[in-house]
Amino acid sequence: MAPENFSVQGFRAAAVNSGIRGKNRLDLALIVSDKPAVVAGVFTASLVKAAPVLLDMERCRTGKAQAILVNSGIANACTGEEGMRLARMTTAMAADALNIAPELVQVCSTGVIGQQLELACFQRGIPKAAEGLAVDGLGDVASAIMTTDTVRKIAVRTVLIDGKPVKLLGMAKGAGMIMPNMATMLSFILTDAKIEHDLLQSTLRKVVVKTFNAITVDGDTSTNDTVLLMANGLAKHPPIAEDRPEALASFAAALEDLCKELALMIVRDGEGATKLVTIRVQGAASEAQADQAARTVANSNLVKTAFFGEDANWGRIIAALGRSGAKFDQHKVDIAFDDVLMVHSGLGQGAEVEARATAVLKKTEFVVTIDLHVGEGGKDIYTCDFSMDYVKINADYRS
Amino acid sequence: MAPENFSVQGFRAAAVNSGIRGKNRLDLALIVSDKPAVVAGVFTASLVKAAPVLLDMERCRTGKAQAILVNSGIANACTGEEGMRLARMTTAMAADALNIAPELVQVCSTGVIGQQLELACFQRGIPKAAEGLAVDGLGDVASAIMTTDTVRKIAVRTVLIDGKPVKLLGMAKGAGMIMPNMATMLSFILTDAKIEHDLLQSTLRKVVVKTFNAITVDGDTSTNDTVLLMANGLAKHPPIAEDRPEALASFAAALEDLCKELALMIVRDGEGATKLVTIRVQGAASEAQADQAARTVANSNLVKTAFFGEDANWGRIIAALGRSGAKFDQHKVDIAFDDVLMVHSGLGQGAEVEARATAVLKKTEFVVTIDLHVGEGGKDIYTCDFSMDYVKINADYRS
Repeated sequence: MAPENFSVQGFRAAAVNSGIRGKNRLDLALIVSDKPAVVAGVFTASLVKAAPVLLDMERCRTGKAQAILVNSGIANACTGEEGMRLARMTTAMAADALNIAPELVQVCSTGVIGQQLELACFQRGIPKAAEGLAVDGLGDVASAIMTTDTVRKIAVRTVLIDGKPVKLLGMAKGAGMIMPNMATMLSFILTDAKIEHDLLQSTLRKVVVKTFNAITVDGDTSTNDTVLLMANGLAKHPPIAEDRPEALASFAAALEDLCKELALMIVRDGEGATKLVTIRVQGAASEAQADQAARTVANSNLVKTAFFGEDANWGRIIAALGRSGAKFDQHKVDIAFDDVLMVHSGLGQGAEVEARATAVLKKTEFVVTIDLHVGEGGKDIYTCDFSMDYVKINADYRS
Repeated sequence: MAPENFSVQGFRAAAVNSGIRGKNRLDLALIVSDKPAVVAGVFTASLVKAAPVLLDMERCRTGKAQAILVNSGIANACTGEEGMRLARMTTAMAADALNIAPELVQVCSTGVIGQQLELACFQRGIPKAAEGLAVDGLGDVASAIMTTDTVRKIAVRTVLIDGKPVKLLGMAKGAGMIMPNMATMLSFILTDAKIEHDLLQSTLRKVVVKTFNAITVDGDTSTNDTVLLMANGLAKHPPIAEDRPEALASFAAALEDLCKELALMIVRDGEGATKLVTIRVQGAASEAQADQAARTVANSNLVKTAFFGEDANWGRIIAALGRSGAKFDQHKVDIAFDDVLMVHSGLGQGAEVEARATAVLKKTEFVVTIDLHVGEGGKDIYTCDFSMDYVKINADYRS
């Protein structure tokens, strides 16, 4: 299978220009399953939820979906009742074009907060997309959902379940306003696996904690974060079920691997980022404290600018740990850059070690391991460095 | 009184070059009270506390102090037992030069974390500073404690208590690693007021919550944050006491006013900052929730880069509120830039209002008022914008 084969049996897709973002960019897309699929969704934990998020949360509870309608350019967040009405109306238009029930259409929007969708763009774009549906259309969808993203994020996995191949395809968008909490910006995952709604939902939720919820670009959680997973059951294996733990484990591992690849694509493409850094905390009192410590370091502007400057400035790391709320004894902390133990028992290890640590920081990907020596709690958080380009991108008018 | 009269009766000071930071910069200073003064201190809440902080916390409990020894260039943080030994030893050297008990010497250090102090610099600098002590030496001390600061931060207030003038002089340093929690980077306040230790301590603690603890440059709390207040009692008023609420209120108001001026000087001089922005949350369920909401907005890189870009991007403000943990209904939030109500009941108010809001953002100082319409809790947090220069300053090797 060539890596360009971005398709899953039973799914078709198309992306078009509808005019939301001018005349030349793909900005509206449809993903359609030939038959109703089992759906699972994980959504932003922000108190401020966009209209499409609220609608999807409601519809996800039915456990079934057949289509995803998505636009970029406008987030349909903070748009009140009118925004909710437009979200419902656009899904009805898609249902009409596809000749399915409106309740089977999920909808996602990404872009500027506080603006209303223009119905005319959807009236123009939806029929065009419905006509263009094709098995090889998913790559275009991954392009259509990009905003400040500089690269398209799409990946596939194939896993054998009971000897039968099961395919998973995932796509994502996101580069800024990235510290997902319960979900990421937007990610759509399609599979031909056979699995019930409840199990699909609980598996997705667990996987998201270790993948999309473990990344940060700038500590800002979006109003529109959504991960949707559709399983159409066309693969030939017996259904994945809780009483078949091996099959479930195989599926969950492939899903986690896929989600992690997409999540790391987002961090690598973080606004202005030049480096992907894993902040690995171990020896914390609990997993929650490890998360807290790793997240505080991963979001510290001082730590992130030091990464950009390739400066092994461990003082900033230990200062961030100190304010994180995690419990530890400052005289017992170890910090390593890849395999260079820069700080042992809270003390720097001198100029020669620092020179080796600095060499690690010159790499584009490395791991900072922090051992608090308190307990057994561990957590990896994936972050990027912080360059002048982040400020440039976000100071420019309205991204 | 000319504004340059940076003196308080009974206090002398001097700053010298000791070699810690090369040959030309003031880097070591002494502030000395002619007689033992009442002392109050507020220190970093970080779990990682520098050696001088630990020593000062211990000595502050006695309620008395006569001198402050301070150096810039090296923070003496994360320096283990050796750092503690050096902190004690340098105070002993100062005590010797001043012919007072070592327990009466407070010590502060600011600069790079993880390096040991060089004793030779103190051996050179302390006698020189002790010889140079002068009533007009405090301005030089304010210069000597600067690190990435671009301006010296010093201010005075005079308040009448029972008809007698009481003077308060404060200085501070700080520009990055600024989100004080219980204290700020470094601030020294001197007064000739007559007041007992416990009352001085409780008054300082209350004032700090509304001033130094209400500012943020980058959300990073330092290992060395310290506010020290010395009161020598030379003013002619009857002692300030709890059973004299009017006198106490006058003193506390002058102290708050002074601390607020110093705190805002720090934000205005925030690394790379071009604007001072007050984030005023009102109508929150509690003061704690107002603080949480205001602090989350004040620390959002997306909000701060929008301020730098002079973009009235209220979507980023509401997104930050949404993840802050404060409770509210997104359909009831109001947001104003100075007197321009940009968002009413969660909805933007259109292009004409946005144009007026954008004009507010072009100012160097403005207030963002957020009304959550839930309860009575309110809080002001002072922040700055986030420019490319912040990244530049902090990506450069080891600030």
